[in-house]
Amino acid sequence: MDLRGVIHLQGWLLIFLGAAMLTPIPFSIYYQSEDLFALGVSALVTFLTGLTVTRLTRIERDVRVREGFAIVTFGWLLAAAFGALPFVIAGAIPSYTDAFFETMSGFTTTGASILTDIEAMPRGLLFWRSFTHWLGGMGIILLSLAILPFLGVGGMQLFKAEVPGPVADKLAPRVTQTAKILWGVYIALSAAQTILLMVGGMDLFDALCHTFGTMATGGFSTRNASIAAFPSPFIQWVLIVFMFLAGVNFALHFRVIHQGPLVYRRDREFIVYTAFIALACLLIYAMTAVRSGEHSEKAVRDVVFQVVSIQTTTGFVSFDYELWPFAAQMVLFLLMFVGGSAGSTGGGMKVLRVYLLIKFVFAEFNRLIHPHAIIPVRVRQQTIPRDVVTNVLGFAVLYFLIFAFGSLLITMMGYDMPTALGAVVATMSNVGPGLGDVGAVDNYSGFPDSGKWLLSFFMLIGRLELYTVLILFAPAYWRR
Amino acid sequence: MDLRGVIHLQGWLLIFLGAAMLTPIPFSIYYQSEDLFALGVSALVTFLTGLTVTRLTRIERDVRVREGFAIVTFGWLLAAAFGALPFVIAGAIPSYTDAFFETMSGFTTTGASILTDIEAMPRGLLFWRSFTHWLGGMGIILLSLAILPFLGVGGMQLFKAEVPGPVADKLAPRVTQTAKILWGVYIALSAAQTILLMVGGMDLFDALCHTFGTMATGGFSTRNASIAAFPSPFIQWVLIVFMFLAGVNFALHFRVIHQGPLVYRRDREFIVYTAFIALACLLIYAMTAVRSGEHSEKAVRDVVFQVVSIQTTTGFVSFDYELWPFAAQMVLFLLMFVGGSAGSTGGGMKVLRVYLLIKFVFAEFNRLIHPHAIIPVRVRQQTIPRDVVTNVLGFAVLYFLIFAFGSLLITMMGYDMPTALGAVVATMSNVGPGLGDVGAVDNYSGFPDSGKWLLSFFMLIGRLELYTVLILFAPAYWRR
Repeated sequence: MDLRGVIHLQGWLLIFLGAAMLTPIPFSIYYQSEDLFALGVSALVTFLTGLTVTRLTRIERDVRVREGFAIVTFGWLLAAAFGALPFVIAGAIPSYTDAFFETMSGFTTTGASILTDIEAMPRGLLFWRSFTHWLGGMGIILLSLAILPFLGVGGMQLFKAEVPGPVADKLAPRVTQTAKILWGVYIALSAAQTILLMVGGMDLFDALCHTFGTMATGGFSTRNASIAAFPSPFIQWVLIVFMFLAGVNFALHFRVIHQGPLVYRRDREFIVYTAFIALACLLIYAMTAVRSGEHSEKAVRDVVFQVVSIQTTTGFVSFDYELWPFAAQMVLFLLMFVGGSAGSTGGGMKVLRVYLLIKFVFAEFNRLIHPHAIIPVRVRQQTIPRDVVTNVLGFAVLYFLIFAFGSLLITMMGYDMPTALGAVVATMSNVGPGLGDVGAVDNYSGFPDSGKWLLSFFMLIGRLELYTVLILFAPAYWRR
Repeated sequence: MDLRGVIHLQGWLLIFLGAAMLTPIPFSIYYQSEDLFALGVSALVTFLTGLTVTRLTRIERDVRVREGFAIVTFGWLLAAAFGALPFVIAGAIPSYTDAFFETMSGFTTTGASILTDIEAMPRGLLFWRSFTHWLGGMGIILLSLAILPFLGVGGMQLFKAEVPGPVADKLAPRVTQTAKILWGVYIALSAAQTILLMVGGMDLFDALCHTFGTMATGGFSTRNASIAAFPSPFIQWVLIVFMFLAGVNFALHFRVIHQGPLVYRRDREFIVYTAFIALACLLIYAMTAVRSGEHSEKAVRDVVFQVVSIQTTTGFVSFDYELWPFAAQMVLFLLMFVGGSAGSTGGGMKVLRVYLLIKFVFAEFNRLIHPHAIIPVRVRQQTIPRDVVTNVLGFAVLYFLIFAFGSLLITMMGYDMPTALGAVVATMSNVGPGLGDVGAVDNYSGFPDSGKWLLSFFMLIGRLELYTVLILFAPAYWRR
């Protein structure tokens, strides 16, 4: 373990983060929002800390697979720890616990908030809050398509052949190339969405903030009422479309540039992802509009918006889904586990994994019927290696174990079952809003500090595919 | 597929079941309980149907592995279908749906009831109701230790080497020998418990009925208040001890006869099972008696009783656990998934599987740290074959998928989340009481008929380890 190298890279991250904190400043000045000092000081502190660290340490040798876990985990932790500074220094979020929760929620693209009055926040800070989503989303794309496959986490080695680029045990060359390609897609889609939202009537500030929340499948809004504050059907449909796109594997978007839109139709995960959304929409529409007999474009939109928002783990709310029947809430609750596609900015277990799980279960029946035959799991003629299947199964089981144990811890704080289950899956799958006390129109401000730290931890482990974080607790990891 | 052979064996089952229906008759006569006619007619109908079937069909060749699935599933279905007759004919349970639910709950050793006034039932029928538990328990022991290992269901091939006896592709010789050995243990323990309960003050009728409910980890009581109607500490501790024993692998009990009680201490599953119970007791005691400061033998007993009852999936209730804090209920809820030991009469996923899952997750961390090493899952120096591990993982995932989908279906009937989750796990894990509307002191009478059939189905698939039933829905199973 090249610990000094790991620390060195964290220094570079802080330098970059410090620079990023200057981004909100034009808005701070334009809106005269009294957070200029806080942003400036935070940027300076972060930048100088990063500079000091990079000067005091150096990389001993090329970064290897094993160090990847520590680099990624500490990277997200530090981003949240320093990213919280502007909120605290400006006094907008007086408690550091709250500020850390909010920033971790930002960088993990969760969107769970402790703010009770979002609109009272200074505009510069509000921009920074949404910007953490966008930066976190960039990190996730990089992580899921370029780093995790090499770490062998939870079946993600499936992606080794996904993105063009040299394959090597050293992370750096491939990471750089992949990052450039995919961030290009990310930025292009973001630009398109911002323009469309402005066409729909949003000002630049709102358009940017909501684009950040969308493309990262984050969910922070600039309004207390979330998207319900923008009743324009055009704006809401734009959000639906871009949430949907953000929940798709970004490598797929990239391949469309060269091979045309048929790429989507040939990708099994994309089809399953779309089928999940369509099925959930039909089910919930049957439970709501069909039952009440009130058909309208708005009724359709409310259903589609909430389904796409939850399945992609964005967490924007345009209608309080807790007013729907229990069964509709249950559908949304289950979608939270599934989440977005692998290689998207969406959280959850990922559509691809859930699809493989279902395929495996069917293969098991065949194995029982033909006990002497070898029954592989196939996706589009391609046989999935047994090891990958086992990884995916293990990931799912670990997900459920953590979910169960986490929910128990939250009930110990006095919360009822729907709240506890909702809060844990909403943070672990990086959705944001859950059920009960943390439902669509509620927030996390009521949790005790211990609960906020715990839920921040769930956001982190969920975002980093569990193993990446938890492995650091294994003593063997730190042994040479 | 030798379908005629499968049907032939069902005929024998009915003959046996018809004879079994005569068992309650002494009690019916003694208590003059006006169910003599119903029991007699039902016995006759069942017996004659069985006789006719055995005459019209014959076994073409030796029964093979593949037929095992159909034999077992249809066996349980028919037992419930015919076993429900006495209740309907006597008019004690007028609806056949209700009677089927109650009988399926009996034979699957679940203990979920639709009766709102148990004590108003004629005594002969009450005896029959409890007796279905005991018969079901006999079936389960046979199934889990002698049949399922050969069917390769959900990692149960782990048990192939567990019980002495010849190993062969043909089921019959091994099954007969295993059955004799293990039923001996079952009957001996039952006799011991009955005597102890009578020493504690129960009459023969109550002692037998509660022994049936205990040894089968069923949970039907003869009283509306379940075990709370027997406040004697002695009786309750006897029940605790025998519930605990019924949740242990019966092959282990058998080995104790030859090798002494050290066998328990050397068995990893037994240790983990005991540890789960101890840990749950400590947790809940801390949440209840420690918090309120009311320490007493009764406080200890209430906690231990409810924990052992739920973990073993018996479902007897001596205290309304819904009066405890949410966290204590959550502990019980999670225990329902774990269930008893493999090879016991307990339901759930089984301690051994849960233990293997946890072992596997730890092995995964080692694999990530040493990507080029082969890291097997070991239990007491013994390497668990990779295939078995994959089976167990697949079983767990299927369990969660069915649980999730089942809960959704129950919410569609208008139930809230705790009720839905509780009802599905309580039936699928064969516990009985759940949460919310089907909590400790409630029952299943309020469910619509569709709900009762659905929950009966969950009892069946849970009891028969999922695959045994679900495989019959695969068209490939029926093809030659």
